[in-house]
Amino acid sequence: MRTLKLVVSYDGTRYHGFQRQKEYVTIQNILEEVLSKFCGEPVKIAGSGRTDAGVHALGQTISLTTTGSIPCANLVRASRRMLPPDIVILSAEEVEAGFHARLSAQWKRYLYRVLESPYNSPFEIHYAWQLQEHLDEVAMNRAAAFLLGQHDFSAFRSSGSVDSSPLKTIYEAQWERRGGELLFHIAGDGFLYHMVRNIVWSLLQIGLGKRPVEALAEELAGGRCRFLNSPAPAQGLYLDAVYYKPYRK
Amino acid sequence: MRTLKLVVSYDGTRYHGFQRQKEYVTIQNILEEVLSKFCGEPVKIAGSGRTDAGVHALGQTISLTTTGSIPCANLVRASRRMLPPDIVILSAEEVEAGFHARLSAQWKRYLYRVLESPYNSPFEIHYAWQLQEHLDEVAMNRAAAFLLGQHDFSAFRSSGSVDSSPLKTIYEAQWERRGGELLFHIAGDGFLYHMVRNIVWSLLQIGLGKRPVEALAEELAGGRCRFLNSPAPAQGLYLDAVYYKPYRK
Repeated sequence: MRTLKLVVSYDGTRYHGFQRQKEYVTIQNILEEVLSKFCGEPVKIAGSGRTDAGVHALGQTISLTTTGSIPCANLVRASRRMLPPDIVILSAEEVEAGFHARLSAQWKRYLYRVLESPYNSPFEIHYAWQLQEHLDEVAMNRAAAFLLGQHDFSAFRSSGSVDSSPLKTIYEAQWERRGGELLFHIAGDGFLYHMVRNIVWSLLQIGLGKRPVEALAEELAGGRCRFLNSPAPAQGLYLDAVYYKPYRK
Repeated sequence: MRTLKLVVSYDGTRYHGFQRQKEYVTIQNILEEVLSKFCGEPVKIAGSGRTDAGVHALGQTISLTTTGSIPCANLVRASRRMLPPDIVILSAEEVEAGFHARLSAQWKRYLYRVLESPYNSPFEIHYAWQLQEHLDEVAMNRAAAFLLGQHDFSAFRSSGSVDSSPLKTIYEAQWERRGGELLFHIAGDGFLYHMVRNIVWSLLQIGLGKRPVEALAEELAGGRCRFLNSPAPAQGLYLDAVYYKPYRK
């Protein structure tokens, strides 16, 4: 029995999220269908985590076990003909038994794209949040610094969540300006349901001058979000990368 | 009777090109429908030129005449609610009588995007030609220089063309590298059917080392393309801007 680790990038626009569903087309449905052909047997994959409908991935990671003997390089090459062009397997490697894309993950990084452009670009509808207002990224970065370290992130969890613990550790949380584009990078050992999108929404209230920088620390400490909270839209969010401990092959 | 000039940007992915068609949804169909509502009467628009299915526009220009009194600023603002988000009116202004988006145009600029990325990005399927091979942009620029000035461009015209004269003057033709992305900028007083896409295809044969730089000059002089010619794919092409003489209001 081999254990394989695959890094996958996808445009989430056309899909009902990552996780397998019976009635809708999801990334997991499509990957399992194609990988089962390559492995010569039905395979189930584990993702590092779900992504919601419309959310994208630059480096989602999945794992699977199989008795199939297809070499990893062949799997990657063949997948480019078999998968729809908006789902791409970037790499595949054989890893030690017991590796699991979700359980073995050490931390994950997300990216959120916000555009300040004066009008909606027709090319960015599905790939960014287009705000058409100027954002104060200095204020947003001062607020984002409150997120670093271990906290109870209940304030930024949407209902419907089934996560076990709201205690998460954030290693990186910062905005980067590139022209009229603002990129939010956030990395941590785990994320609650809608946590990144709720954080982005709250930081943007600060960036728009509607709330003071300290408001974010208060929400975090209070465990309850008093921002007029609604998650930032899905299309701006990208699962950037998932990190694992080095392992022996 | 007022004459209006509008600058429009669109993502051509979902449309059957610019030009009005009875059985398919086109950019012109949609613009005329919405503009007729604003003007309170049926309007016909003139575009600076057609764009094929899948071709995009950063700055397509259209003109129309109307007895409607809607102020230009209101028209732009209202259009953002009424148009689908992949078609955007960037600006509108009242111009002198007789202005016509196609007949008054002095020159146009196109952009073509080619990516050298080692794999197909799921995010660029509809927005670039993804080649996955290294291109020699120095050779391509040396070849592109042969295009400058006035020439008979019959060698780069696809059949099905109804253009009057194959004599066109090219003012700019150069490749710009940005990381793994190659942008071709070409500006001229007119373009034949598929001319930009045929030129891109031929230049890429040179960039891939399959043909020498001088081959382009020979094709141009011979009036017949002996490259294994097929136009570069539509999704990489953008109508960048259309230039007009300054005019009095």
